[in-house]
Amino acid sequence: MIFRILNSGEKVRKADLEALAQDNLARFANSLSEKALRYDLTVPFARFVVQHQNELSFPFKRYQIQPVWRADRPQHGRYQEFFQCDADVVGSDSLIYEVDFVMLFDEILSNLQLPSFTVKINNRKILSGIAEVSGESDKLVDITVAIDKLDKIGEEGVVKELQEKGVSQSAIQKITPLFSFSGTNAEKIAKMSDFLANSEIGLKGIEELQFVFDQVAALGMKKAELEFDITLARGLNYYTGAIFEVKANGVNMGSICGGGRYDDLTGLFGMKGMSGVGISFGADRIYDVLTELDLFPKETDQGLTLLFVNFGEKEQAYCMNLVHQMRSKGIDCEMYPSSAKMQKQMKYANDRNVQFVALVGEEEMDKSVIQLKNMESGEQIALSLDELIKKLSYEF
Amino acid sequence: MIFRILNSGEKVRKADLEALAQDNLARFANSLSEKALRYDLTVPFARFVVQHQNELSFPFKRYQIQPVWRADRPQHGRYQEFFQCDADVVGSDSLIYEVDFVMLFDEILSNLQLPSFTVKINNRKILSGIAEVSGESDKLVDITVAIDKLDKIGEEGVVKELQEKGVSQSAIQKITPLFSFSGTNAEKIAKMSDFLANSEIGLKGIEELQFVFDQVAALGMKKAELEFDITLARGLNYYTGAIFEVKANGVNMGSICGGGRYDDLTGLFGMKGMSGVGISFGADRIYDVLTELDLFPKETDQGLTLLFVNFGEKEQAYCMNLVHQMRSKGIDCEMYPSSAKMQKQMKYANDRNVQFVALVGEEEMDKSVIQLKNMESGEQIALSLDELIKKLSYEF
Repeated sequence: MIFRILNSGEKVRKADLEALAQDNLARFANSLSEKALRYDLTVPFARFVVQHQNELSFPFKRYQIQPVWRADRPQHGRYQEFFQCDADVVGSDSLIYEVDFVMLFDEILSNLQLPSFTVKINNRKILSGIAEVSGESDKLVDITVAIDKLDKIGEEGVVKELQEKGVSQSAIQKITPLFSFSGTNAEKIAKMSDFLANSEIGLKGIEELQFVFDQVAALGMKKAELEFDITLARGLNYYTGAIFEVKANGVNMGSICGGGRYDDLTGLFGMKGMSGVGISFGADRIYDVLTELDLFPKETDQGLTLLFVNFGEKEQAYCMNLVHQMRSKGIDCEMYPSSAKMQKQMKYANDRNVQFVALVGEEEMDKSVIQLKNMESGEQIALSLDELIKKLSYEF
Repeated sequence: MIFRILNSGEKVRKADLEALAQDNLARFANSLSEKALRYDLTVPFARFVVQHQNELSFPFKRYQIQPVWRADRPQHGRYQEFFQCDADVVGSDSLIYEVDFVMLFDEILSNLQLPSFTVKINNRKILSGIAEVSGESDKLVDITVAIDKLDKIGEEGVVKELQEKGVSQSAIQKITPLFSFSGTNAEKIAKMSDFLANSEIGLKGIEELQFVFDQVAALGMKKAELEFDITLARGLNYYTGAIFEVKANGVNMGSICGGGRYDDLTGLFGMKGMSGVGISFGADRIYDVLTELDLFPKETDQGLTLLFVNFGEKEQAYCMNLVHQMRSKGIDCEMYPSSAKMQKQMKYANDRNVQFVALVGEEEMDKSVIQLKNMESGEQIALSLDELIKKLSYEF
């Protein structure tokens, strides 16, 4: 799903027509392209860490906000170009970062005024434990991928997929009760501990999960609900510990954030043993959710604070000076650009939702005052520049 | 110089091999590509204005900061991917916006602490006047393009190019004295007024230029030098009035900003008579200049404010709570992620340029205090959490 850049100019002459004739489309595309669009922020981050490993202090944290591109079929909540906002810590396997990231989900989404959201958490080691206990350790990925689809294809669909992948009937029988796993987080953890009693790795996963639950409970979240979801796998093969996903409640939208612990991301670039954990906020989906729930503050639509009416050349030059002085005090103001009819200028003020209009004609220039008209109340008062600056600085 | 996206998957089968055989590379490329990378912010802005013309109030202002891509040969100060920061006003031919934009160049680049920079200004109408006076009005573009290269190819080169373009010898004789035009801005304007005495459009350009100079002088700039540069044309055919370019002085770098007045940008999308003026900041070049002049404030390299040393599980849980409380007060702090040897933890604190280290062992937990160590002075004091928050909130 990587978008590729077509080589420029003369270079397209190097098209591998033989590959096309053989229907080897990948090789044909390769012959036409040397560059591609950024697919995610995680792989570039891994490359950065490997490249700068001698200058960085570990654990190393970074955040990064950039557009990424996916050659996917566009649909509700799925874009071909979208902004990812990533935060990662590499160089430590400490679980305090898992705790930090759960707190970060809570902090950021609460600050965005999202009324209700669930941070789902699972652990890859628990999934490994499930595969082990069911006697199908070598089918871990198949089992994980199938379980991840429970939401979409239902229990029957998952069972069918497991069968297709060659998971034994006895293993499937062991696994299926997990689909309807319910209760509080503590109850689910207790049941899962029993289920995984004979799996060392599974119990390790439970222990890690328990640590995150305990610490997060001790710190206290603002709004997020934390939920142990054993069906959560996120299909990504590189997670090795915690797996996160965030859903906005009451909205028809896939996950708005995701993430997890990975132990070998930098391995791709030849650097082993660098454990990390990272999360990603899907900015566009969050934007869509905030829009759907009408959560953008009305102030963001607020028009201009002050518009100077334009009475002619001389007045314009005089007012430009006032505009400049007011702007230097941080007051948002503009000059109407021509001495059009008053009606036209006032219509513009209305259309732009301007809060005040300043009227400065010859008389006002002589007296060094500004007639300030409140566009809502219609009230009009004469003020000196200092008084005007004071008034508008206090009010906004 | 537009980067194109190679069609994905099966679609490459539609490659127009006949076009390739005929060496029609453009048609071949077209058959392989339906999308492209954003080349600038001006054309998308024009499209936006046309599309939303019924909802917008004119004059309409917008700024936009985004990466753009050019399939150009990379070199010093020239990137294939770079950030443009554009500001435009459309729907008015008032010169107050030209004044606003000169002030904006000054404001922003002064705020970035750029020590010395020149805002070069010219006017397309003056260039038209030059062509008219020299009797070669129909060769305006050729003359403009040639003059624009004066910096790069010198006077002889420009003359040669004019000859090649078929500009008459008598016209060239009339034009060449302009290359060594010198003096103050007022002197240059006076000389140019004489030169253009018989060109209505030329004199109109002078009048516009004079207005901008007068207004900017009245408002007063912080640091920018404004310079009338008759060789400035920026090769862009769409400018119709003012032309801007900004150069950082004392640095080997092309223009760091540019812009100008255009009268028919939206014409491309079928909307006539929409005059606008806009400027663009080249963020990457500005970054390069700031780096070369070592102007990034040292504070941007500042490490972490406070690191909590990790003495073990119990202490870690206790300190995580302190970290969380301090962060909620806006204090930048972290917990070392494991109870490694003190020496290792202190080395990490040093490497990250941490200002304070907090030591909380069993004794401190019992007494509800935090031992705070100033990493520069070595000074150590015991504080309550409230005292610590107060101290670090005041100092930073």
